[in-house]
Amino acid sequence: SVIDATFEGEGDDFERVKQEMVMPPLVPVHDQVAKGGPKIVEVTLEIQEKKWEVAPGDSVWALTFNGSVPGPLIVVHQDDYVELTLKNPATNSMMHNIDFHAATGHMGGGDISEVNPGEEVVFRFKATRAGVFVYHCAPGGMMTPMHVTSGMNGAIMVLPREGLKDEKGNLVEYDKALYIVEQDFYLPKNADGSFMNLATANESMNEMANSIKTLIPTHIVFNGKKNSLTGKNSPVVNVGDKVLLISAQANRDTRLHLIGGHSDLFWPGGKFNNTPYTDFETWHIPGGSAAAALYRFREPGTYAFVNHNLIEAIAFGAIATIKAEGEWDNSLMKEIEKAGPIK
Amino acid sequence: SVIDATFEGEGDDFERVKQEMVMPPLVPVHDQVAKGGPKIVEVTLEIQEKKWEVAPGDSVWALTFNGSVPGPLIVVHQDDYVELTLKNPATNSMMHNIDFHAATGHMGGGDISEVNPGEEVVFRFKATRAGVFVYHCAPGGMMTPMHVTSGMNGAIMVLPREGLKDEKGNLVEYDKALYIVEQDFYLPKNADGSFMNLATANESMNEMANSIKTLIPTHIVFNGKKNSLTGKNSPVVNVGDKVLLISAQANRDTRLHLIGGHSDLFWPGGKFNNTPYTDFETWHIPGGSAAAALYRFREPGTYAFVNHNLIEAIAFGAIATIKAEGEWDNSLMKEIEKAGPIK
Amino acid sequence: SVIDATFEGEGDDFERVKQEMVMPPLVPVHDQVAKGGPKIVEVTLEIQEKKWEVAPGDSVWALTFNGSVPGPLIVVHQDDYVELTLKNPATNSMMHNIDFHAATGHMGGGDISEVNPGEEVVFRFKATRAGVFVYHCAPGGMMTPMHVTSGMNGAIMVLPREGLKDEKGNLVEYDKALYIVEQDFYLPKNADGSFMNLATANESMNEMANSIKTLIPTHIVFNGKKNSLTGKNSPVVNVGDKVLLISAQANRDTRLHLIGGHSDLFWPGGKFNNTPYTDFETWHIPGGSAAAALYRFREPGTYAFVNHNLIEAIAFGAIATIKAEGEWDNSLMKEIEKAGPIK
Ligand SMILES: [Cu+2]
Ligand SMILES: [Cu+2]
Ligand SMILES: [Cu+2]
Ligand SMILES: [Cu+2]
Ligand SMILES: [Cu+2]
Ligand SMILES: [Cu+2]
Ligand SMILES: [Mg+2]
Ligand SMILES: [Mg+2]
Ligand SMILES: [Mg+2]
Ligand SMILES: [Mg+2]
Ligand SMILES: [Mg+2]
Ligand SMILES: [Mg+2]
Ligand SMILES: [Mg+2]
Ligand SMILES: [Mg+2]
Ligand SMILES: [Mg+2]
Repeated sequence: SVIDATFEGEGDDFERVKQEMVMPPLVPVHDQVAKGGPKIVEVTLEIQEKKWEVAPGDSVWALTFNGSVPGPLIVVHQDDYVELTLKNPATNSMMHNIDFHAATGHMGGGDISEVNPGEEVVFRFKATRAGVFVYHCAPGGMMTPMHVTSGMNGAIMVLPREGLKDEKGNLVEYDKALYIVEQDFYLPKNADGSFMNLATANESMNEMANSIKTLIPTHIVFNGKKNSLTGKNSPVVNVGDKVLLISAQANRDTRLHLIGGHSDLFWPGGKFNNTPYTDFETWHIPGGSAAAALYRFREPGTYAFVNHNLIEAIAFGAIATIKAEGEWDNSLMKEIEKAGPIK
Repeated sequence: SVIDATFEGEGDDFERVKQEMVMPPLVPVHDQVAKGGPKIVEVTLEIQEKKWEVAPGDSVWALTFNGSVPGPLIVVHQDDYVELTLKNPATNSMMHNIDFHAATGHMGGGDISEVNPGEEVVFRFKATRAGVFVYHCAPGGMMTPMHVTSGMNGAIMVLPREGLKDEKGNLVEYDKALYIVEQDFYLPKNADGSFMNLATANESMNEMANSIKTLIPTHIVFNGKKNSLTGKNSPVVNVGDKVLLISAQANRDTRLHLIGGHSDLFWPGGKFNNTPYTDFETWHIPGGSAAAALYRFREPGTYAFVNHNLIEAIAFGAIATIKAEGEWDNSLMKEIEKAGPIK
Repeated sequence: SVIDATFEGEGDDFERVKQEMVMPPLVPVHDQVAKGGPKIVEVTLEIQEKKWEVAPGDSVWALTFNGSVPGPLIVVHQDDYVELTLKNPATNSMMHNIDFHAATGHMGGGDISEVNPGEEVVFRFKATRAGVFVYHCAPGGMMTPMHVTSGMNGAIMVLPREGLKDEKGNLVEYDKALYIVEQDFYLPKNADGSFMNLATANESMNEMANSIKTLIPTHIVFNGKKNSLTGKNSPVVNVGDKVLLISAQANRDTRLHLIGGHSDLFWPGGKFNNTPYTDFETWHIPGGSAAAALYRFREPGTYAFVNHNLIEAIAFGAIATIKAEGEWDNSLMKEIEKAGPIK
């Protein structure tokens, strides 16, 4: 059982590799099947406090890892170490830290990674479990939910060293990976119901102490802004591509669905050492967890990727589109009679 | 893996059968184990925009397939085609379409099935995956959540050709099937908090653009109306019956529970090619998905079937009753001393 | 299949054992592997209506089994009988009963256990299914959600007779068990938004008929009160201990997470005759169900155990802490450079 796993050594002598972070929805260059033995994967994250429009006219103070919501995806293999350098530039206004759900001890690293503006810290943790996991800032007290719901979260993917396995236990390789993360925002409102436009991140914290207590978000978006992944920002895949859809929700339950598609494979709880389910139409992500679904696209066209509370998708922003290019296959769907007068 | 499934032909030469729809909670006549090879199952759905009382005094403009909420259950086998004729009578007031979660491509059929009042359309899709799946109208933009939360959804059951299998992989047959679907409604309110009574479906759309944004339903009911399945409307089964409980929630999470009973078998995500769980007390349905639970009734009496957020069950309407007839079995439960003075 | 299970006899001749209840988060003395054959386990629960402060200054009329929220954990083995004596002292003000999700028939026992103040009742049920299950009061109508959300719920653990099995099917024994249950409270508010301080339990029922309809709790706590399991009330374990975390939520979904830890084993739906998942970071509990997670602590220090909607954890109270004592293991996590000026 995983209960009996033992771990030796501190990794000091492991080969070191530096992982270059990329902006969501992209994922860093990586091998699916590990080459060689466990490594120390060096990752640097820089905290950026940035104001942006989560929807036209609605500004939010986003607290971010590397300037994006979500923070960038980190990819390692089971039993690798992650050596994390966390930098909090002096231009920032508050203390931050990082808690990795993939780590063990010290509140996921949160207790040993607190950095004030102008500081950096380095710690190392062993990725002992395979799967996709949330990471997030957790400064303590009310700052924890407020930082998380200001965007300060992301995910790490820990692949089994031998790669992913399908529902029969056979190796499966994905052709592409997309990293699409839902964020619930709680923009503070003025007395007249309009959203506040705040001058500093600290004022955002003051006001959010009230807005989060409604438990009802004002915006629910993918990758930090309404329409960040629609129109010309839509990811493009090919018919026949096996696409790994990596998602997360650091705070609040969601239920993801690919309109016109499915998940061929969906790993329970986002954890790869469990046999994946097949054929799911919609997959539930509890707040505080991550998810991985693999789908081989079979038809060309536009697929909407939504939170299937359709109010949250359309009125609150939790919608992306994925465009598949290729040849139509009438064996799966066929128009018989176009719309016309009732006979 | 399901990833590697291939499909040939467009089904034009398949045997055609016409499925007669029936009103929920009934299910259409069907074989559990498929007879012969894949077929084209012809289904006609007529859209009806109807006003009714979701609870005494509370009127809603229900947008429906075939006049019921949910729309009727469709039953086919894996690899059958569904040939769907969608009719939008000229007496209706708006455009509608249909998205099948069981289908592949064209937004589940939504993109090729838009019908204005007076129009009909026909398309065919292959039911490549086994399970219970949601279908729903999805006209686009805010109309999508508003139509879905006006009742315009139902489910399709795609049985494995060889029938259902239990947790050991052995064939299991159900004696009865019940189709009970939860609907969240968002009735618009007047300034004084009373529910609006609107003259047209279009006015309902105008007002619902605001009521849905609360994310808090005003009514949560089974099969379209409070008490649709209680009292003399309660389904009746026999002790010893293996009953397949088919449910769905097209928009919002629910958690179903049979008070006094369990599910012997509950299929993950509602998808039959996954090994069922056993012994669940309560089963979670993410919004945008369907569920199938099998239970062999063991005691006579009244069972409440509820959304086990008991506020949603009792105050909002998400409750049905199922009556089982037969002989009491003291080996499972026995009264020892009736209520009396504390000794 | 479990569908085919047969049960004989009424247990009258079984050996009788009396289970002494203990206060949460403790669990009653029990064998993990059953000794001898099925027994009648005698349990007495006394209903106490008690006013207490769920958070400083916020009083609630708690309706309780044995004076605690949750009611005490009952532990039996599959195929044992539970013989339940329910006492409603004359000092109480209303009718109560009990519905066991582990039971079959008579609304889980609710229909045959109604006791007015001054009454007691005795009934027996067979624990035919293995797992952790909710029990709760269910007097009928609006009283059901009001009693449940006033604290009147707990859990019963039905162990397989041969003990628990890990993900490989091998016997696993836990060293400690903790019973931590989330409760959603809906304290009624005065017009000025302050919480009412009510003189009687009946007044609480009158006012709660409105407060529960918001569907938004005012307090979400573990074991009945904010901070019941923090600070000096934190449970203490040892590094190397395999700890069984038994949880439940009788009314509303939650998503539990051990900050700095994981679940090595998490049983689907809380039901032990299903193969457990491994490696979950966060485990979802639908309202109306119970959960069991096993974790072998590997590092010393403080672990927060939270509802990972972090607003619900921090602003509403759904947080506990568990302290692990032992030696730090640098192989899992290691500080490399303490916080200092950015280089
Ligand atoms: Cu932060
Ligand atoms: Cu966390
Ligand atoms: Cu429609
Ligand atoms: Cu849909
Ligand atoms: Cu009670
Ligand atoms: Cu219950
Ligand atoms: Mg670990
Ligand atoms: Mg701290
Ligand atoms: Mg957030
Ligand atoms: Mg498909
Ligand atoms: Mg369109
Ligand atoms: Mg709806
Ligand atoms: Mg039973
Ligand atoms: Mg009664
Ligand atoms: Mg409660």
